[in-house]
Amino acid sequence: MLSTTSRTTLGRGKKRARTSRDDLYAVLDAGLICHLGVVVDGYPMVIPTGYGRIGDTLYLHGSTGAASLRAGGSGGEICVTVTHLDGIVLARSVFNHSVNYRSAMIYGRPRLVEDPEERLAGLRALTEQLAPGQWDAARPPTRKELAATTVLALSLEEASVKIRQGPPVDDEEDYALPVWAGVLPLRTSWGVPEPDPAMTADLAVPEHISSRIVAIQ
Amino acid sequence: MLSTTSRTTLGRGKKRARTSRDDLYAVLDAGLICHLGVVVDGYPMVIPTGYGRIGDTLYLHGSTGAASLRAGGSGGEICVTVTHLDGIVLARSVFNHSVNYRSAMIYGRPRLVEDPEERLAGLRALTEQLAPGQWDAARPPTRKELAATTVLALSLEEASVKIRQGPPVDDEEDYALPVWAGVLPLRTSWGVPEPDPAMTADLAVPEHISSRIVAIQ
Repeated sequence: MLSTTSRTTLGRGKKRARTSRDDLYAVLDAGLICHLGVVVDGYPMVIPTGYGRIGDTLYLHGSTGAASLRAGGSGGEICVTVTHLDGIVLARSVFNHSVNYRSAMIYGRPRLVEDPEERLAGLRALTEQLAPGQWDAARPPTRKELAATTVLALSLEEASVKIRQGPPVDDEEDYALPVWAGVLPLRTSWGVPEPDPAMTADLAVPEHISSRIVAIQ
Repeated sequence: MLSTTSRTTLGRGKKRARTSRDDLYAVLDAGLICHLGVVVDGYPMVIPTGYGRIGDTLYLHGSTGAASLRAGGSGGEICVTVTHLDGIVLARSVFNHSVNYRSAMIYGRPRLVEDPEERLAGLRALTEQLAPGQWDAARPPTRKELAATTVLALSLEEASVKIRQGPPVDDEEDYALPVWAGVLPLRTSWGVPEPDPAMTADLAVPEHISSRIVAIQ
């Protein structure tokens, strides 16, 4: 079950709220980037960034010099939102237009990860979220690279999930209008891999990359 | 030219910064949703939501009851971020993995729109951003629907744009490694329109909807 704190209990759009942790995991695991919210000098900052999940912990990383991570790492509250836009909901009235989506919001105070093993595990999860298989295929991080990287851990304890699916919901009297109504689905897919022109050897696209091209369709 | 306030002047990743307003317009106009950041009771909240642009003003809307818009509407600072993820950058080292993206961040204190004509224009821009052509095709908002909707206007004065494109940038000594490197592009496309099963008349998909299916490829 997901948390029921005031900020994760939906005041509006209750019908779209999910309460199972499996829904949370599914939304997070299907994502590539999140939008990280921090408060800097009293104003909000929303930064697109990568993430990875291990169990009930979300890992974020960044340069040790980044203001956003300094704010997050100094014990302040953060909010992480992952959104999948699945389609545009075309209703018979302008007012009832909507979107189909899956989104997760996580609130909490992140923990600065200092244990070397957990730092590596977190970075691995982050890399694998974007590029499964690459952690083992590419050169591992050096001590210097690790020192330049901040890793934060955010508990998934306080989270909410919202999902909207299906056709528009119109006002009763609008169903008779001669207006086409339905959903225009939005699809995300991988294109053909583009080899780095600077590649010196003639290497084939590895299976762990080429196999993704059909996987996401 | 875009603004050069401290929060829109990039401390990190300077090479990715763009300074032209045309880049800002291009990122915003190509988007479907934004992530809105507000501060509620001292903590950040990041909400996926729709938006529309008219000139140098961004319009946001929501139910008059939504906490996020109450926070934004009461004169507090907000941050609006629009992100397009264009591909995964697969480097020879884990550390140099990255993503190709286009993103815009806008900071400011939104203005509550009260003028009826500007409210309508803002809502039209919001609808047309998600569903071009639908404002004229669907039933217009009633007085009651308008009364239930909060419209906020955010100046595009203080904004930053970041764009990363192209192959990975690896450490000099890594180029000789036998690791495939390049970009796995991410594509967004429209699927086949799904008619609402509740549609009573046999209506064809209008041209302003069907024409999008190729447009985004």
